[in-house]
Amino acid sequence: MAEVLGLKCMKCGREYSPRNALLVCETCGSNGILDVLYDYSKIQLSLKELKNDSQNSLWRYRKLLPLNDKTRISPLQVGMTPLYSLKDMAKTNGLKGIYIKDDGRNPTASLKDRASAVGISKAIEAGSKAVCCASTGNAASSLAGFAASLGIPAFIFVPKRAPKAKIAQLLIFGAKTIIVDDTYDRAFELSIETSIRYGFYNRNCAYNPYLVEGKKTVAFEIWENLGYQLPDKVILSIGDGCITSGIYKGFYDLMKIGLTDHLPQIIAVQAAGCNPMEVAFKTGEFKEQKPNTIADSIAVGIPRNRLKALRALEESKGDCISVSDDEIKQAILELPRVSGVFAEPAAATAYAGFKKLLNSDLAGKNENVVILITGNGLKDIDSALSVCQLPEPIEPTMKAVEKLLG
Amino acid sequence: MAEVLGLKCMKCGREYSPRNALLVCETCGSNGILDVLYDYSKIQLSLKELKNDSQNSLWRYRKLLPLNDKTRISPLQVGMTPLYSLKDMAKTNGLKGIYIKDDGRNPTASLKDRASAVGISKAIEAGSKAVCCASTGNAASSLAGFAASLGIPAFIFVPKRAPKAKIAQLLIFGAKTIIVDDTYDRAFELSIETSIRYGFYNRNCAYNPYLVEGKKTVAFEIWENLGYQLPDKVILSIGDGCITSGIYKGFYDLMKIGLTDHLPQIIAVQAAGCNPMEVAFKTGEFKEQKPNTIADSIAVGIPRNRLKALRALEESKGDCISVSDDEIKQAILELPRVSGVFAEPAAATAYAGFKKLLNSDLAGKNENVVILITGNGLKDIDSALSVCQLPEPIEPTMKAVEKLLG
Repeated sequence: MAEVLGLKCMKCGREYSPRNALLVCETCGSNGILDVLYDYSKIQLSLKELKNDSQNSLWRYRKLLPLNDKTRISPLQVGMTPLYSLKDMAKTNGLKGIYIKDDGRNPTASLKDRASAVGISKAIEAGSKAVCCASTGNAASSLAGFAASLGIPAFIFVPKRAPKAKIAQLLIFGAKTIIVDDTYDRAFELSIETSIRYGFYNRNCAYNPYLVEGKKTVAFEIWENLGYQLPDKVILSIGDGCITSGIYKGFYDLMKIGLTDHLPQIIAVQAAGCNPMEVAFKTGEFKEQKPNTIADSIAVGIPRNRLKALRALEESKGDCISVSDDEIKQAILELPRVSGVFAEPAAATAYAGFKKLLNSDLAGKNENVVILITGNGLKDIDSALSVCQLPEPIEPTMKAVEKLLG
Repeated sequence: MAEVLGLKCMKCGREYSPRNALLVCETCGSNGILDVLYDYSKIQLSLKELKNDSQNSLWRYRKLLPLNDKTRISPLQVGMTPLYSLKDMAKTNGLKGIYIKDDGRNPTASLKDRASAVGISKAIEAGSKAVCCASTGNAASSLAGFAASLGIPAFIFVPKRAPKAKIAQLLIFGAKTIIVDDTYDRAFELSIETSIRYGFYNRNCAYNPYLVEGKKTVAFEIWENLGYQLPDKVILSIGDGCITSGIYKGFYDLMKIGLTDHLPQIIAVQAAGCNPMEVAFKTGEFKEQKPNTIADSIAVGIPRNRLKALRALEESKGDCISVSDDEIKQAILELPRVSGVFAEPAAATAYAGFKKLLNSDLAGKNENVVILITGNGLKDIDSALSVCQLPEPIEPTMKAVEKLLG
């Protein structure tokens, strides 16, 4: 395990001992998301050790995770997802490399599994008998799956308007699913109150600081996938900012333990119909928004982990951009056709952002660019169908086939 | 590559040279599915070599596959899917081990990707400019994904009644999707005629003998996952018999090259509402059936690869059993709750079969049993929802939460 020095509030800077069971700042409450601080001098992880490690999962980085060495972990195989090179596209556009990191290949088909893997073990360390979160999407189904894999009860709050398909995953994993006749924000608040009232472990990523630590493993893998080299840019979509915070933390850790010497640029992509992070990054001022976009997983009007995410963008000399829903729809269609990777709308948003950069100032730069795909398209078949044209049926004859194919 | 000695008709026994571009027997037509014969004396694959091979995909078994060493392959990462041990359940029931092999973790979320990986490369070897198949399900979406990953056009025939969600995957990967205003059987026939008429490479698994060769890699992996040991039993669902044929072929290969010395028992599970294989295995007589089951991927009234599948069951001293739709529905719910693995109905059928055996004569036998999960539940959310009970929404108050949770 990585020795945790303390937990530091992203808002007021107050530090807490790791022995303290607090998940958020005492002063700032749930606005004061904590950052996990390590004693990097005590983390010994060599390139040779990694190369010889045959573990095909994120547990190969256990030395960089805030978990005791003996804490029970879920048997579900998480991480070590594939990185695909789009060689022809890179060549055509004068880039050194274009890579798709497909995190839709995780157990419940999203990057959230990295967070759940760590979160469920932190719940065990905390002695909690059950876990709890609020979500309508990937985090909820991920927690439900990991809880099932260890036989731990899960209580999940979803707003009434949550799509039935996403609720199906919760029910199938046997999670106690509490449908709240109100907004997501109210479901979120109730999940916090319930976890305190019943002693459930809270897995909300924009609340519990240890979840981002699970997400950071995707940065380690990108570096490994590229032959222990950093890319120049990582492009990913951003909602409440947890994945952006996680990928930064991973690259930061690698630098602090001496395996790398700088941070790659992190480019976060929002939907134009909901871009509070872009506004905050560019103007320095945060304003709540009402989401209006097809990319539901990043339709977040109040990005709760914005302070960590803004730090990630600033310190990596990155950027925050936005793309229109038309550009996202185009990406939903184009990405699977150039790569064989089917992404959910929020994940395809990263590819849309990449295409926008390519059309402005990225082409010809001879850089290595990684596009992070955070969720599988099978999670949202309806959105996929909405951008496809269903062909008309033909008569069951070769004549009709020949007429169609020419 | 494995040196192919010849192709032998499963029906009449006639042998063909591998240099012959035939896919089916000249005499028996599409009833005469061919079997790929190897010169095992020329295949050198040692345990040490496998242990030192860092390739995290089915290509670690390339020496056992009928592909030239230099043939281009898809970049999609296929195979090396996880095998999970259900330790508590094994202990309770007096079994040595119960294992879930989760092949829903493949690129397009089903075992069919193993066949497509080999099939698409055989298409390249054959010099075909396009690939073609008929299917309403996993094989079609798999072929579409692999074709997209290599920029090869795919033509896919589906019957009009195919679920829109499955058609969505084809469209998203950019496959030319031909919706036939007739049954699946007619779509299948048109796909064969079209592939001959236009020179497209035909990927129908119950037609093209090389597809089963891709599927056999799951047997190699089960043996590797178990620490280079064979299980006592492998339990899997059966539709047209291709996966059963494939898993047998893999275990057969291992024995022929001297890495193992026997075959594990193969237990194939059908839905009681469509059990022509069970009837054929038990009575020796084949009769076409009209399918009536929730498990659509195995709702096959005319199992086209039945000769190979029957050989697999007989030579492995296996069995063919059936389970009711109620048992399948119970399995759809129970499997994810004990393992964290969400399976589509046809895949859950294997688990239902396992439970049936456990309740009859399997318990206390001190055996290692592997249950093969062939497709991800995300492919069929509607069936999952149909077995779950959607809870009533609650008022957004802690009082309502407390009333619910007690």
